[in-house]
Order: sequence, then structure tokens, then C-alpha cells
Amino acid sequence: MSSDNRSETEAEIMEATYRALACRGYAELSIAAIGEEFKKSPSLVYYHYDSKDDLLLSFLDFVVEEFTAMFEDGRDDDPESRLRELVDEALPVEPADEQRKFYRIFTELRTQSVRDPAYRERFRALETRIVEAVTELLREGTERGRFNVGDVDRTAEHLVALLLYGLKVRATSAREPAVRETRALAEELIDDAVTHQHSTP
Amino acid sequence: MSSDNRSETEAEIMEATYRALACRGYAELSIAAIGEEFKKSPSLVYYHYDSKDDLLLSFLDFVVEEFTAMFEDGRDDDPESRLRELVDEALPVEPADEQRKFYRIFTELRTQSVRDPAYRERFRALETRIVEAVTELLREGTERGRFNVGDVDRTAEHLVALLLYGLKVRATSAREPAVRETRALAEELIDDAVTHQHSTP
Repeated sequence: MSSDNRSETEAEIMEATYRALACRGYAELSIAAIGEEFKKSPSLVYYHYDSKDDLLLSFLDFVVEEFTAMFEDGRDDDPESRLRELVDEALPVEPADEQRKFYRIFTELRTQSVRDPAYRERFRALETRIVEAVTELLREGTERGRFNVGDVDRTAEHLVALLLYGLKVRATSAREPAVRETRALAEELIDDAVTHQHSTP
Repeated sequence: MSSDNRSETEAEIMEATYRALACRGYAELSIAAIGEEFKKSPSLVYYHYDSKDDLLLSFLDFVVEEFTAMFEDGRDDDPESRLRELVDEALPVEPADEQRKFYRIFTELRTQSVRDPAYRERFRALETRIVEAVTELLREGTERGRFNVGDVDRTAEHLVALLLYGLKVRATSAREPAVRETRALAEELIDDAVTHQHSTP
């Protein structure tokens, strides 16, 4: 699934980075720790990346590429099902351990944006890409006569706000009523987009 | 505004903590740095707190107390105006530097919850308090015949989700269209709560 302009070694370093982040978190992470998770020689990690942040910024580029590839893969599927899959990815009813790890990693890396413009730029790109994907699905569904949405851009921002908020609550305060209500609100938003169509003449 | 069971010295240490956090952020913060921001002897900070995290957890308790006191102070005001003030506090159109600092501090401290259960507990308490305050305003407005809200608990979670998401976007990716749309959605939510009343017989 990784992009063509990334070598196999680089893709393997990205996987090692994910595992090291999941175990240690951002603060305790080092290039040495990533080298330990990497199956080939750790010196290859040093060869490709100058610092922990250099590597993590590449990791975020990799996440954006993966998201884009995943989105392109599903291009022929029904827009409503794809929106519902997005809800299940971000706010599953029973998250797997792997998913919980991802939400934690995502939250920790995102917070680096508070003080580091390079992280801010990556998260802006990632969020923009997610909102664009939702916007595209809403437009496509509207063209196919499946959705009836007033303001597509606002609805896309609304759905992404609910999903990213719920995901962050799960990773931080773990307030379960908030996660449940946020998921229900996201589902309602999709229901409204679909059912409004049936009520118009 | 601080609670009675906190001494004047402790309240001053909390103010110094806020200033030190705003300048340095969580990772670079130390008890020594807080001592430098403190007007009295830095040794007093060490006398009251064992570690940086011990102090920061007290700081979060202080934030919950401040929020509660602020909420109690406005008890006699109109519920609709109070909800709109909350939107202005969390998502001002033009945030002051001081507010931007607060959003960054809030985001950095919240992320400590990913790995530290003591932070998680504080943020769960703070979020619960905020949602309770919004729920109370929605109920009060409903009793006074000003609001007509279907599900009060869900609407409260919805408003808080939009406000905290917008605040975090401002502190991290700084994606301005998202902040603008999120604020508009929060305002719409309040408008709907109010105007529905006029359309019922």
C-alpha cells in the first residue's frame, strides 16, 4: 500500500517507527529504539534519517500517503458505506488494541504541532486530506442522488470534527459517554444526509 | 476567584505555573522554572510540591475549581447568553495572545493523559464538569421556556465536542476554515435550541 517513491527499506523503517511509538510514546522515543524494532541493521535507520523528528515527520508523510492510497482503493464503493466505514475506523464500538495504540500515537504526535511548525504543517495536510475525502464522498453521493446535503463543506468539517474529537477523547480522558454520543451524532449526520432525500418531492 | 481551601501562596504558585507553562511548554518545564516565575522564594515551590507532575496535577485541580467558580458566578444570567459566552471563550473570532497560550497549554497537558492515569483522571473531571455546566444551562433554558431541545445530554456533548475540537485545531494544525466552520456549527446548535421553541404551537 505504500507509495512508489518510497523504497522497501524506508517502508520497513516506517513500520518499525510505528511499533516503537506504540511501545514507548513520543517522549521516550529515540532513533536507537526504532533501530531495535527494525529487522535489518539499525545503522540503516541512521543512514536515512538525521534525527528523531526528521524520521517522525517522514512517518507523518507516510500516514498521509497511506490514507490517500486507502481512499483511492475504495473509489468504486458506495459513498454512504464509505462514510460509515470511516466512522468505524475512527470510532469503533469495540476498538482493537492496535487501534487504541494508533489513537494514542496520533494524539501524541499531533500535540508536537503546538511548538513545532513542521509537525503543524503535516497535521494540516493530513486533516485537509481527510476533510477533502469526506467532501468528495458527500458530493459523489449527491450527484448519484443518494444524499441531500445543504452545505457540503460545512457537513464535511462537522463529520471530521466529531470523529477526531471522539478519537482524542478515547486516547486521553477515556470518557466513554462522550465517545458513545459522538459516534451517535456522526451516524445521525449520515442518516440525515441520506433520509432527507426521501422526504423531498 | 480561587477556592477557599487553597492558600494564597498556593494560588500564587498556580499563577507562576501558568506563566512558566506558557513560555516553555510541558516538555521543557521544571520546578526550577516555576520557581523563577514565582515572586516569593523558589524554595516555597519545592516545599509544597514533590515533582513537576505533582505540581501540574494540582494546577489542573485549580483549573477545574476556576471553571466551577466562574460558572457559579454567572448563575443569574440568561442561559442563552451564557452558552454564547462559552462559545466566545473557547472559539473567539480573534483570540488574544493570552487565550492562544491557554489553548496550547491545555492541549499539551491533555496529551499527558495518553500515558499517565493521574492526568487522565483530571481531564475526565474537567470535561465532565464542562458537559454538566452545559447540560444545566440547557435544562434551565428549557424550564424557563426559552429552549426546546430533544436530547439534552446529547446536545450538551455535541456543543462541547465542537468547542473542544475547534480549540484543539487552533492549538495544533491551525487550520482556520475548520475553526470558522466549527464555531458556525456551535452557533447553529444554540440557534436551533432557541428558534425551535417559536415554531412549536
